[in-house]
Amino acid sequence: MTTPHEYAHANAERFLEELKTLIRIPSISTDPEHASDVQEAAQWLADHMRAIGVENVEVMPTGGHSVVYGDWLKAGADKPTVLVYGHYDVQPAEMKDGWTSDPFEPVTRDGRLYARGSSDDKGQMMTHLKSFESIMKTVGALPVNIKFILEGEEEIGSRHLYKFVAEHRDKLKSDVCVISDGGIRRVDEPAITYSTRGLSYMQIDVTGPVRDLHSGIYGGIVHNPALALAQIISKLHNEDNSVAVPGFYDDVIPLTPEEREELTKTAISEDAVRSETGVPQSWGEDAYSLRERVGARPTMEVNGLLSGFTGEGSKTVLPAKAMAKISCRLVANQKPERIFELVKAYVKSIAPPGVHAEVQLIDKGDPAFIERDSPEMKAAIRAYTQVWGATPIFIREGGTLPILATFRRELGVDSLLLGYGLTTDGAHGPDEHYPIELFYKGIDTNIQFLDEIAKI
Amino acid sequence: MTTPHEYAHANAERFLEELKTLIRIPSISTDPEHASDVQEAAQWLADHMRAIGVENVEVMPTGGHSVVYGDWLKAGADKPTVLVYGHYDVQPAEMKDGWTSDPFEPVTRDGRLYARGSSDDKGQMMTHLKSFESIMKTVGALPVNIKFILEGEEEIGSRHLYKFVAEHRDKLKSDVCVISDGGIRRVDEPAITYSTRGLSYMQIDVTGPVRDLHSGIYGGIVHNPALALAQIISKLHNEDNSVAVPGFYDDVIPLTPEEREELTKTAISEDAVRSETGVPQSWGEDAYSLRERVGARPTMEVNGLLSGFTGEGSKTVLPAKAMAKISCRLVANQKPERIFELVKAYVKSIAPPGVHAEVQLIDKGDPAFIERDSPEMKAAIRAYTQVWGATPIFIREGGTLPILATFRRELGVDSLLLGYGLTTDGAHGPDEHYPIELFYKGIDTNIQFLDEIAKI
Repeated sequence: MTTPHEYAHANAERFLEELKTLIRIPSISTDPEHASDVQEAAQWLADHMRAIGVENVEVMPTGGHSVVYGDWLKAGADKPTVLVYGHYDVQPAEMKDGWTSDPFEPVTRDGRLYARGSSDDKGQMMTHLKSFESIMKTVGALPVNIKFILEGEEEIGSRHLYKFVAEHRDKLKSDVCVISDGGIRRVDEPAITYSTRGLSYMQIDVTGPVRDLHSGIYGGIVHNPALALAQIISKLHNEDNSVAVPGFYDDVIPLTPEEREELTKTAISEDAVRSETGVPQSWGEDAYSLRERVGARPTMEVNGLLSGFTGEGSKTVLPAKAMAKISCRLVANQKPERIFELVKAYVKSIAPPGVHAEVQLIDKGDPAFIERDSPEMKAAIRAYTQVWGATPIFIREGGTLPILATFRRELGVDSLLLGYGLTTDGAHGPDEHYPIELFYKGIDTNIQFLDEIAKI
Repeated sequence: MTTPHEYAHANAERFLEELKTLIRIPSISTDPEHASDVQEAAQWLADHMRAIGVENVEVMPTGGHSVVYGDWLKAGADKPTVLVYGHYDVQPAEMKDGWTSDPFEPVTRDGRLYARGSSDDKGQMMTHLKSFESIMKTVGALPVNIKFILEGEEEIGSRHLYKFVAEHRDKLKSDVCVISDGGIRRVDEPAITYSTRGLSYMQIDVTGPVRDLHSGIYGGIVHNPALALAQIISKLHNEDNSVAVPGFYDDVIPLTPEEREELTKTAISEDAVRSETGVPQSWGEDAYSLRERVGARPTMEVNGLLSGFTGEGSKTVLPAKAMAKISCRLVANQKPERIFELVKAYVKSIAPPGVHAEVQLIDKGDPAFIERDSPEMKAAIRAYTQVWGATPIFIREGGTLPILATFRRELGVDSLLLGYGLTTDGAHGPDEHYPIELFYKGIDTNIQFLDEIAKI
């Protein structure tokens, strides 16, 4: 009998052509002019899923772009149910952004498929449909139950997904979620992200005089709100670059020695920071490594500043107000609302008496922290080890994936971030590309993973 | 024989009507649509000057709006030459700005003439032409030589005047300059401004990464330029609110006990600052009174801030750069270029090592400090005392009048700021008005001043 792996290898070329077909649909979710393309991609996926044996396939309305749902639940109630999340929408892309070839006409160069969505996330998402097909066409049945939730708004903040998940709790009920949408570092180094940061995004408004004043008449006797704002911001960090807000670190789960050791495998070098960003030297919390600072520690950033006169030349205004956007990246178990309350209280406590300072919460997202020794995670590790011939390393990401917290809260499931895309694939930029080798490795890993998780 | 004062009083009503005629010409220098009005005002002035006996009257080109020049030099080489400066252009004014009556149709209410330019500066400027006329029509000759330089671009920064003065040094050669364009506090309190502040206007640019970064990926390992800028700005002042730039105060002429005593006559109250600006409390250098802070001490203001994302909502950008406009108000004998060099060196010395900081000079103006015991000033004091029945108080203004430094540098003359307008006249705002009493007091004071200065 042909094994699922053999089937996948025998059909590798067709799989790639099918991915190219999906890629050719410019499903740019942020652009209203491409709304019909987004819908077409959803329809193509639904048709394709039906064709390979996924059942109960639906293109479901969300208030925005559709969710494509489908399942196969015939493994039996005693078998786990795996929820596969992916997204079929893509970032905008135009030749003038610096593409070498048409972003929506995939071409292969040096073993890489160049096209928008090739890596993020059409390529990685498709590995799950192709592993499903490979098992169904050979074994005739999956070893576990499976549900697919493929969304069309990931690139615009999953605007309607959180509500959608809450409204379809029963339909989406599962034991573990699998997401392949992200960043490993090398084609020969399997990696699983087990931690993403949360977000608490705030705006500070400092006001002083009721109107802009003439700096010649009032300069020196009125506290300048732009100066006061700078003075407030300068007190948000300590000398060692840690955040100075009292209580800020109270809920942070301390790094264990084992975890710090594991994180050295994905160490970020000083040279890498300099060459990637052009800064003269790195920065951050003295007591932590660069990888720990970006992945395992909460931070506070100034995202924007605005006050007074900002045009060419000069205007001697003493501005009536000054504004800063600031945001904290959070780690488990910090709560965005709690952090907002702490920052607000601190800013008000340090605001100089000659001005007023207000702080408002603009956006928030929970951090996620996935257990590394759960049976599901162990199943994933076994799958990787067999397919890649190497044990996956554990990664903490600096970014925020609020959907993880949503799945945790609404469905009670953890997500396994089985990334099959390189951090260097150029997602969101020109010449996005995807190592074709990873497309096939992903399919093989998924086949193996479903076998392994069936055993737990 | 009729005295000049008697002539002035007898012709008071006609003088006022002539002022109204000038006011009705909407000589708004900033508005290209009013260019012909500005020219008409210049022509009207030239005609009027010729009619009252001013000689060598010329409407002189400047590259922008014209300068009206005229003189009378028959007092003899042993008599001083007085240069009278004024401006015939006005700020924009429209009913929709909140005027009670047409800004260019002067009306009298409660002894005040309401109209744009009534105080700033047509009313005050005309006192000098009317005193000239009063002397010429009675005595038949002035006790001193006199030169008039009336410009049409004061409200747009005297754009072409500095060059004009430099190019006409010989023509404008004189012994003292008299300017009536400013702020006294009460109609019964004569005052002479003897100090105006200079200006050193700079831009600080902090740059870090070569492009905006994702705060989730680089937040915590790269020094955020907006944060770095705030940290730099927070070090520009000491705890006592004095400027922290080393050497900043080196050239400041210390206040004498007599001067500090004199300045108490124009004390600014804490209540006044709060009610005029709406701030919860005043601010500034602990060691100096509010009047001293605004008039006799140099300051440093933040005039503008710009970095990263400043729109509605959130964007988790780690900005590549951050910009601040800062300006120093200077006092004698500080030099704008020297202050710029000091600030630049200091900012560079405190810039964190993870960013680059650049400082550029955008605009500058010299401070002015007029000797209070010169023979010319004593002549002015005597004139005031005789006409007003009170000794003028000495005022230090917080604003900048670069023309004073230009006259000092190019012509070698000090300027006597004989203000006949109230600070509350609403110059630049709606319902600008001018106490008619001050128009007449100004004429009388000028007549007396020319007599007094002839004696020195």
